Amino acid sequence: MKPTDSTKGDIVPTTRLPSAGYSITVRVAVIADSSAIGRLTTAVGEAGAIVTAVDVVDSDHLRVVADVTCDTADSAHADQVVKALEAMDGVEVRKVSDRTFLLHLGGKIEVTSKVNLKTRDELSRAYTPGVARVCQAIADNPEDARRLTIKRNTVAVVTDGSAVLGLGNLGPAAALPVMEGKAALFKRFGGVDAWPVCLDTQDTEEIIKIVKAIAPVYGGINLEDIAAPRCFEIEARLREMLDIPVFHDDQHGTAICVLAALTNALRVVGKKLADVKVVVSGAGAAGTAIMKLLLRQGVGDVIAYDRRGALHRDMAGLGPDWQWLVDNTNKDNYSGDLPGAIVGADVFIGVSAPNLLVGDDIARMAPNAIVFALANPDPEVDPREARKHAAVVATGRSDQPNQINNVLAFPGVFRGMLDAQAKEFTEEMALAAAMAIADVVGEEKLNPSVIVPSVFDPRVAPAVAAAVRAVAQQATTSSVLDSDPAPIPEA
Amino acid sequence: MKPTDSTKGDIVPTTRLPSAGYSITVRVAVIADSSAIGRLTTAVGEAGAIVTAVDVVDSDHLRVVADVTCDTADSAHADQVVKALEAMDGVEVRKVSDRTFLLHLGGKIEVTSKVNLKTRDELSRAYTPGVARVCQAIADNPEDARRLTIKRNTVAVVTDGSAVLGLGNLGPAAALPVMEGKAALFKRFGGVDAWPVCLDTQDTEEIIKIVKAIAPVYGGINLEDIAAPRCFEIEARLREMLDIPVFHDDQHGTAICVLAALTNALRVVGKKLADVKVVVSGAGAAGTAIMKLLLRQGVGDVIAYDRRGALHRDMAGLGPDWQWLVDNTNKDNYSGDLPGAIVGADVFIGVSAPNLLVGDDIARMAPNAIVFALANPDPEVDPREARKHAAVVATGRSDQPNQINNVLAFPGVFRGMLDAQAKEFTEEMALAAAMAIADVVGEEKLNPSVIVPSVFDPRVAPAVAAAVRAVAQQATTSSVLDSDPAPIPEA
Repeated sequence: MKPTDSTKGDIVPTTRLPSAGYSITVRVAVIADSSAIGRLTTAVGEAGAIVTAVDVVDSDHLRVVADVTCDTADSAHADQVVKALEAMDGVEVRKVSDRTFLLHLGGKIEVTSKVNLKTRDELSRAYTPGVARVCQAIADNPEDARRLTIKRNTVAVVTDGSAVLGLGNLGPAAALPVMEGKAALFKRFGGVDAWPVCLDTQDTEEIIKIVKAIAPVYGGINLEDIAAPRCFEIEARLREMLDIPVFHDDQHGTAICVLAALTNALRVVGKKLADVKVVVSGAGAAGTAIMKLLLRQGVGDVIAYDRRGALHRDMAGLGPDWQWLVDNTNKDNYSGDLPGAIVGADVFIGVSAPNLLVGDDIARMAPNAIVFALANPDPEVDPREARKHAAVVATGRSDQPNQINNVLAFPGVFRGMLDAQAKEFTEEMALAAAMAIADVVGEEKLNPSVIVPSVFDPRVAPAVAAAVRAVAQQATTSSVLDSDPAPIPEA
Repeated sequence: MKPTDSTKGDIVPTTRLPSAGYSITVRVAVIADSSAIGRLTTAVGEAGAIVTAVDVVDSDHLRVVADVTCDTADSAHADQVVKALEAMDGVEVRKVSDRTFLLHLGGKIEVTSKVNLKTRDELSRAYTPGVARVCQAIADNPEDARRLTIKRNTVAVVTDGSAVLGLGNLGPAAALPVMEGKAALFKRFGGVDAWPVCLDTQDTEEIIKIVKAIAPVYGGINLEDIAAPRCFEIEARLREMLDIPVFHDDQHGTAICVLAALTNALRVVGKKLADVKVVVSGAGAAGTAIMKLLLRQGVGDVIAYDRRGALHRDMAGLGPDWQWLVDNTNKDNYSGDLPGAIVGADVFIGVSAPNLLVGDDIARMAPNAIVFALANPDPEVDPREARKHAAVVATGRSDQPNQINNVLAFPGVFRGMLDAQAKEFTEEMALAAAMAIADVVGEEKLNPSVIVPSVFDPRVAPAVAAAVRAVAQQATTSSVLDSDPAPIPEA
């Protein structure tokens, strides 16, 4: 879950814990004695890092050279850990490597051939002259592209780099590591061949034209990290134009996961969606999509809150998407601040910025409150504080219970759409995917700390894919549904 | 080598031989006796096909069910083979499969992850939260994209589907099998991660805009099967705009391979390029690039011939590329037909259409003539006829000696450019690549039937890559040259 709506403040995060995302390996030479390694690991631990490995790489009678690998909280903390080692008597720091950067050298994905090209016969079939017949077959019957090319299994991961994670407008080159990671996740969890499309333009019309033009290679489009409100128009227009599904993960992926988590959280506290009042902090791509899906499901009421305050009917000059929100939310026309908005609310959903609320704010919510503080890496409220007052607390963090992570949704959603050769992504698919995710957590496992399955639960993607595929198959004609390989052409 | 300049006539090809590109597998049930299989293979052979495998898949006391696989000449010939089997007593044809189509089911390439995503720690490094630091590093120092992302090793294979093989304007979807095949060859022969970009537009300005916009993900652009003269402007404009090499394989790949082959052919016949007169049939992408490279190398004279006849100085209304050809070729201002043009010529190079010349035409060339008849699958002149009169004959066919195939050039050229982090493709690189290919055929192996190495010769791509890299390194500053992984960031 990414705070795409974030305008990050300067508040110093207080909840950061050491994480594998900030793992470093420090090569040190230390005077050889029986306590040498112990002193190193103690020093690292006292500096607040977590030692995950110690490998001795060389030694002689005088010295031991060892690689100490540890998780740190952030770059500044990593510096402190190195300084703590440098300050030790008889210890020489030789090199510091960052495991995250090491992993990224040369990129995270590659293109591999599914055909052997070891012999001339294979070359003749995969390339000229054999390939000419396949081209001609597709020219004669364009639907054959879904059978005889990669289109059957490909998704373009499209960004303009305007809202990269919570980091803001970094541009297309700096967005590429995220898109590569997404492509890797698509393959790992959904068996989907996804490819990064990082566009060197942030012009809405140009982005629409380009995505339309590149579409022949793909069976689906996944928009990613495109700023609001531009993302809404791009998505809507492309959905009109293209005969393949267009999905904006920051919107729909997030909304699916939140609805899945909220469904189970409401089961835990014994409330009904129609009876609850929800406050959503963040009215960008994620927040807007969440609210639309909740309204579609019949939520009691929603108040949308962003940097302009609570969206209410006396506001002027809003774009069409926000005007729609104003018209359909905030029944009492509340116009105060965020802590005031959540007084008496049943649910708080944050997709915005860190540290907007404190534990006392949560204490003023309705009994059995539900708090989803999803800003990453630092949530809207410290989850440990929230947990003192709310019945169910979820975050986007992997080191807290109830991690709400889009990886639960997008691989299965696209797997299902590709298998059904779906021509569009629909709200019905979103609802079906959300229910499928929620139901993977069985009745017997459900509790306040387990409202969503683990991202590594192997049941999730197949369940989501089956649910989405079923919806797609209801919606389309039987000819489109025949996703099994059609009979091969007879010579 | 592809006849992108082709306007295919209706001349019935006379030189087609059975090929693996037209391989079929026929499942037959035949009455079980000791001669059953023998009768099947005999029938297939008598029908003119070549049996490559017979697999018995089932049998009982009465019947044998077998898969007979054979190479045929084309689709009509495959039908004849099947009919011949159906006509046999006691034989029942159950199913005919086309091995080329089977190979294409689901496409020929896939995207695979280079990182394990089995544990939460790996997820934290490859995706959020760890990836955020890598994004920030690239935003701070854009050159890091070549180190920390796939850009280091990626090439976009870009087409608009306007000149697909010799088939013409089939559009982007039907072009995809060729681009996938190209991507597979890029990986197989050059270790390059290439990805198909098939554009649903044939507007020059739009294509330029789109390629510029998608460029951040790639270390190079390979234009493919884009019709002339549009391809010239697209290439020239993109070369101006982009800081990565732009290569049009139909032009530059073909020109490199032809120059390599001609260099060795001239060695065989003991002539010098400065002394020879060359006739080039086809003044599209390939022909134009070949002539430019030959002129740059100081060829004696060239006559360009296309569907308008010989390009000469009395022609009006030519575009800039053809006007340049008129100004720099055809010293005697010849304006007659093609058979007349090659009277007394030392070299004929065809990149055009089948069966334009006969053996008697070749007989009227200069002594020790060189004939490259590269139209595929049917050459400009039957190579068996040409060989009666010319000293060296080459084609684009894999079933004839001296196959001139772009696979000799493009994988090594891009390998070299990517390794050098080259910012552009230059004529010096083309010349170096051509000489590297020519030199792989050593002095001791060189003869009229071996003027180019086999496409499977493992020495070719490394030799081409080294030659191109050396040129790139002469041309650029030392900072760009450092293509070894830079030291990883210190925490």
